[in-house]
Amino acid sequence: MKNKIKIIGFDADDTLWVNEPLYRETENQFCGILSPYFPENVTNKELFKTEMQNLEMYGYGAKGFMLSMIETALRISQNKITPGEINQIINLGKDLLNQPVILLDDVEEVLKKLQPDYKLILATKGDLLDQERKLKKSGLIKYFHHIEIMSDKHEKNYSKLIHHLDIEPHDFVMIGNSIKSDILPVINIGSKAIHVPYHTTWQHENDHDEMDNSKFVTVYKLIEVLNIL
Amino acid sequence: MKNKIKIIGFDADDTLWVNEPLYRETENQFCGILSPYFPENVTNKELFKTEMQNLEMYGYGAKGFMLSMIETALRISQNKITPGEINQIINLGKDLLNQPVILLDDVEEVLKKLQPDYKLILATKGDLLDQERKLKKSGLIKYFHHIEIMSDKHEKNYSKLIHHLDIEPHDFVMIGNSIKSDILPVINIGSKAIHVPYHTTWQHENDHDEMDNSKFVTVYKLIEVLNIL
Repeated sequence: MKNKIKIIGFDADDTLWVNEPLYRETENQFCGILSPYFPENVTNKELFKTEMQNLEMYGYGAKGFMLSMIETALRISQNKITPGEINQIINLGKDLLNQPVILLDDVEEVLKKLQPDYKLILATKGDLLDQERKLKKSGLIKYFHHIEIMSDKHEKNYSKLIHHLDIEPHDFVMIGNSIKSDILPVINIGSKAIHVPYHTTWQHENDHDEMDNSKFVTVYKLIEVLNIL
Repeated sequence: MKNKIKIIGFDADDTLWVNEPLYRETENQFCGILSPYFPENVTNKELFKTEMQNLEMYGYGAKGFMLSMIETALRISQNKITPGEINQIINLGKDLLNQPVILLDDVEEVLKKLQPDYKLILATKGDLLDQERKLKKSGLIKYFHHIEIMSDKHEKNYSKLIHHLDIEPHDFVMIGNSIKSDILPVINIGSKAIHVPYHTTWQHENDHDEMDNSKFVTVYKLIEVLNIL
């Protein structure tokens, strides 16, 4: 792959640092608050339904997640939830936003080795402010040329990104944990992709088309990308 | 100014289309919901206080505004606000997100005339998804090379933008309604700026350092930028 690649795009959440487990933990606490009204498994399902209904309006990130938790709480409790419990939900969301950043294995070593030979960018569909804050806390800011925020990781957004970076599709490789967001749309526009699976994946990210495994590489440890690039 | 400029950055809200009056209208309705608990002028002041406290955590945009309205309602009603009223606040926010886009005077004519000679970008500190949606609704998407989302419009973020666009500061001019966000940080890094005041400005945007009017141009109608550029 080496000779052709100019820019490497890294997904951020659950590729460079822990994210989904923090959301899961917040969801568990949310279900705990709602437990006087509804069993936990139902609350979880209802929250996911609200998130999907609001996704087009709110996009990805913690603030939309907070609003969807509040809306779900009001709906499933049939407005019996107390103002104090809504306050608890807001505080859950603020705690989520203030979590420390926990790097995944070998991240810094990989970035350090790649930086001299490539332009590295962070390509994420999170909220810009959130991702900037995490990047700052992570200590990794020095390795990245800049952050590219995408409202969603669809093919047309990757095409816009390639256009905006002034390169050709074959100059670009994307590295990430989500088949749906980081891999399929990227190989579909003629770029390359390396899949680094993570043990916890949001169910929305698992809802993708069938795929042809021969078109991208999967590595089970990030450090292995150094053998490919 | 003409010969030196390569890229023109346009602010979006209240430069290309109506924004602040929609927020004001939402705030008025919010004060109406809270009126059983607190007089309107106090509610407004408390909301602004909450927004400023949350700004570093939430950044700019409608979702943070919604969360700050809910938090303010809980606090100033001392948790007496009802779940039904919180639902009303969420719906106010969703209505705000779904407002049609109303273009300001001469916007399309100005963009059409400038596009052949410059690369036009939208440089905004709103939420990417919101701004993409408004740009789509506005019908102006064809005039812009891309959207640059900035977590805040500080000098260092404009410097990053210039670096990221691969140009020199003197190649760039910013056009916008906010002295604090669109003008002062831009002239401070050696770029140019054209101020197009708008009749309604969020009080946060009015909180800026003293300025030297000789360093930028003010026009009272957007169409006048054509005489300068």
